[in-house]
Amino acid sequence: MTNRNTKGHHPGKEAAGRAAAELVKDGSIVGLGTGSTTAYAIKALGEKVKKGLDIRAVVTSYQSEMLAIQAGIPLTSLAENPVLDIAIDGADEVDSNLNVVKGGGGAHFREKVVSLSANKFIVVVDDSKISDTISMAIPLEVLPCARELVQQQVAQMGGKASIRPASRKDGPVISDNGNFIMDAAFGEIPNPQEFADKLSNVVGIVEHGIFTNTDKVYIGYKDGKIELRE
Amino acid sequence: MTNRNTKGHHPGKEAAGRAAAELVKDGSIVGLGTGSTTAYAIKALGEKVKKGLDIRAVVTSYQSEMLAIQAGIPLTSLAENPVLDIAIDGADEVDSNLNVVKGGGGAHFREKVVSLSANKFIVVVDDSKISDTISMAIPLEVLPCARELVQQQVAQMGGKASIRPASRKDGPVISDNGNFIMDAAFGEIPNPQEFADKLSNVVGIVEHGIFTNTDKVYIGYKDGKIELRE
Amino acid sequence: MTNRNTKGHHPGKEAAGRAAAELVKDGSIVGLGTGSTTAYAIKALGEKVKKGLDIRAVVTSYQSEMLAIQAGIPLTSLAENPVLDIAIDGADEVDSNLNVVKGGGGAHFREKVVSLSANKFIVVVDDSKISDTISMAIPLEVLPCARELVQQQVAQMGGKASIRPASRKDGPVISDNGNFIMDAAFGEIPNPQEFADKLSNVVGIVEHGIFTNTDKVYIGYKDGKIELRE
Amino acid sequence: MTNRNTKGHHPGKEAAGRAAAELVKDGSIVGLGTGSTTAYAIKALGEKVKKGLDIRAVVTSYQSEMLAIQAGIPLTSLAENPVLDIAIDGADEVDSNLNVVKGGGGAHFREKVVSLSANKFIVVVDDSKISDTISMAIPLEVLPCARELVQQQVAQMGGKASIRPASRKDGPVISDNGNFIMDAAFGEIPNPQEFADKLSNVVGIVEHGIFTNTDKVYIGYKDGKIELRE
Repeated sequence: MTNRNTKGHHPGKEAAGRAAAELVKDGSIVGLGTGSTTAYAIKALGEKVKKGLDIRAVVTSYQSEMLAIQAGIPLTSLAENPVLDIAIDGADEVDSNLNVVKGGGGAHFREKVVSLSANKFIVVVDDSKISDTISMAIPLEVLPCARELVQQQVAQMGGKASIRPASRKDGPVISDNGNFIMDAAFGEIPNPQEFADKLSNVVGIVEHGIFTNTDKVYIGYKDGKIELRE
Repeated sequence: MTNRNTKGHHPGKEAAGRAAAELVKDGSIVGLGTGSTTAYAIKALGEKVKKGLDIRAVVTSYQSEMLAIQAGIPLTSLAENPVLDIAIDGADEVDSNLNVVKGGGGAHFREKVVSLSANKFIVVVDDSKISDTISMAIPLEVLPCARELVQQQVAQMGGKASIRPASRKDGPVISDNGNFIMDAAFGEIPNPQEFADKLSNVVGIVEHGIFTNTDKVYIGYKDGKIELRE
Repeated sequence: MTNRNTKGHHPGKEAAGRAAAELVKDGSIVGLGTGSTTAYAIKALGEKVKKGLDIRAVVTSYQSEMLAIQAGIPLTSLAENPVLDIAIDGADEVDSNLNVVKGGGGAHFREKVVSLSANKFIVVVDDSKISDTISMAIPLEVLPCARELVQQQVAQMGGKASIRPASRKDGPVISDNGNFIMDAAFGEIPNPQEFADKLSNVVGIVEHGIFTNTDKVYIGYKDGKIELRE
Repeated sequence: MTNRNTKGHHPGKEAAGRAAAELVKDGSIVGLGTGSTTAYAIKALGEKVKKGLDIRAVVTSYQSEMLAIQAGIPLTSLAENPVLDIAIDGADEVDSNLNVVKGGGGAHFREKVVSLSANKFIVVVDDSKISDTISMAIPLEVLPCARELVQQQVAQMGGKASIRPASRKDGPVISDNGNFIMDAAFGEIPNPQEFADKLSNVVGIVEHGIFTNTDKVYIGYKDGKIELRE
């Protein structure tokens, strides 16, 4: 299965993914995020499992489930293991205070649940995702019948929410939970925590893509170097 | 189809439902809630439609869809008509400031979306639902994989969230949107607006049952009398 | 969480459940069905796991997931383990050729997927479920928008399909997959395999409750005795 | 919202869509399919509605809902109007006996329900969709947990089923009903009715893309000419 942005090898993404995998201790329960950089972390963890690392993983999407199974990582669930030792995930934008935006892959609801269930939340990205201030459109998972109400409320907040069209089915992208994915452009968001609280109060949004609970970010550069921010 | 609490005729519920139906003007788009008192409003509106009232309705659940069709009320949707003139719905508890708790019927997510899409939100209840302060367990619609995380966060807020068991299927009640219904007991909630904001920030809750946007409440008494609060 | 028909101890159900649990070999991947008799099998398997039995289980519903976790049985999934060694499940009716009807608990879709993924499918019931010929209404999982079309097609087959009303939410019972549960009364069904094929061709039915792949049935009597049919 | 294959004007698609729209009589309830050729029919119907045609439409997907609303066609539902006068839809392949394959847009489940609810089912396509014998991979809507079981059963039928990857979310395409879309390659299918029956018996398939109930096909050529087959 080919996927969103898994085109070609990126040494920095791989280095960031591998660095995060190094943080996983024997005996851990690990949350596995979605996306191309996380895929490198999953592959690296799979190699360690083959060498004897004893872990079990909770996935955040059908994509990460498939990758984890392929990599040979035994799976569990939040129902079975409600508290995770660590969660590793990618991001679509990271600001200077480690606030991140997720949801380009449409999986941010389960990703947020998993990240908050973990004692440590590690983000892995390439350097193209770094910015001073969040400014990308915020992915929203939305109850289908509430799309107009969400657009109205987002407009009242000064933004513009659009339904994300699919390209391999007709109509909108549907999330793994059966809801719409919308993208809400607000321009720069200098105060992500406050803004996230406001978005949480918008009725009809099942979950938005702002995460304010990151512990560490590994940034991979094209030359394969990585930088750690925490 | 028999249903939750539709046992026997209740003159007060009927009077409250009929009073609300009287507010609906010709040419309106009307939101139709769920539950036994609202069912009287739907029936009353159906009688008016037969006599020539020109309305179209947006339903909040499969139950209200079935009742509206039976009553002969033409239906539309929020996609087609994003702004409603009026919405009529029941409630499970009403406090002295017209804050209400809904979700006993598991339909509070769409009910909230519909109520907020309406210019006026009218609540109809019998007098057993009235209290000074909200104190019933708050119904929550919850992403299935987030049930443990929601229980933890509710516990941190001083409450106790339980999965609502079904009785005509095995396992939990599943909402019309495919999610779990949980009930979170917090005791008295003297400040529902503030509390609602906090609940909205609990990750994993798709929507909670506190509504703070009621315009009028019709209360029906067993003797068939009604009282209006606004 | 209390549930559909788990009222009081039934020595025959327990004996049947325990007998099925005895069939599970060390190292197996086991499918775990839904319902009150299967619950005894899950409990028995949990006791064996505590004594060292090495198994992993695939659940068929949120109910069996919760029971298995409570019993301490490690879980896996069909994605991770597509072939099961054995599946154990209850039934609502068993005919003289070991054809069974399931879906009283609304979980027959995943139950059928799990039973067909298993090398052996063991059914456990109490003697009240035994009959010469299938005659109970057949549970159907139905796409919500197809309910009328299903009713028409069922009527053409000589049956009558009704939506199953919920009692702890308003409106119909919703399955764990977000669909309607309907019950289709046909009277006696002397040729279940042929009839099952016809039902599979009814457009709008996601899955019906007739299973024709049972290997063994353990029948428990009120005095605690069991009978094996195969 | 841009979408799958709505790139550039196609005179033949438009002519086919318009021809189908001409069949719709005043007072009809019309089923509206999904896809680029149907979109022309929807637009043409919208123009007729503006000129006074009195119809109501049932949509088959979020896409056709959005297009119909944009075109100003009043909507209804199968719940409200279980029997349609006519349904118009596109197709991905049409054989010489008017058997068609649908599901390239992932909406074939609701499309099939709508087509079977209609007294006449009209297919509109461009000439690239015509073939002697069906040979494209058959789109399947599949319960997520049953994907492996479906792959096994499809393999036993001599085919190969693959999960359809999404490109604007991570992981598989999710249908409007929350299920997976898979594509099952079987090579030529000379006997579509018999084959459709077999596919309907595959447990885990919610619905497959073979339709054998077409009444008329309008084929549009690049020069704007159309051909009618019935």
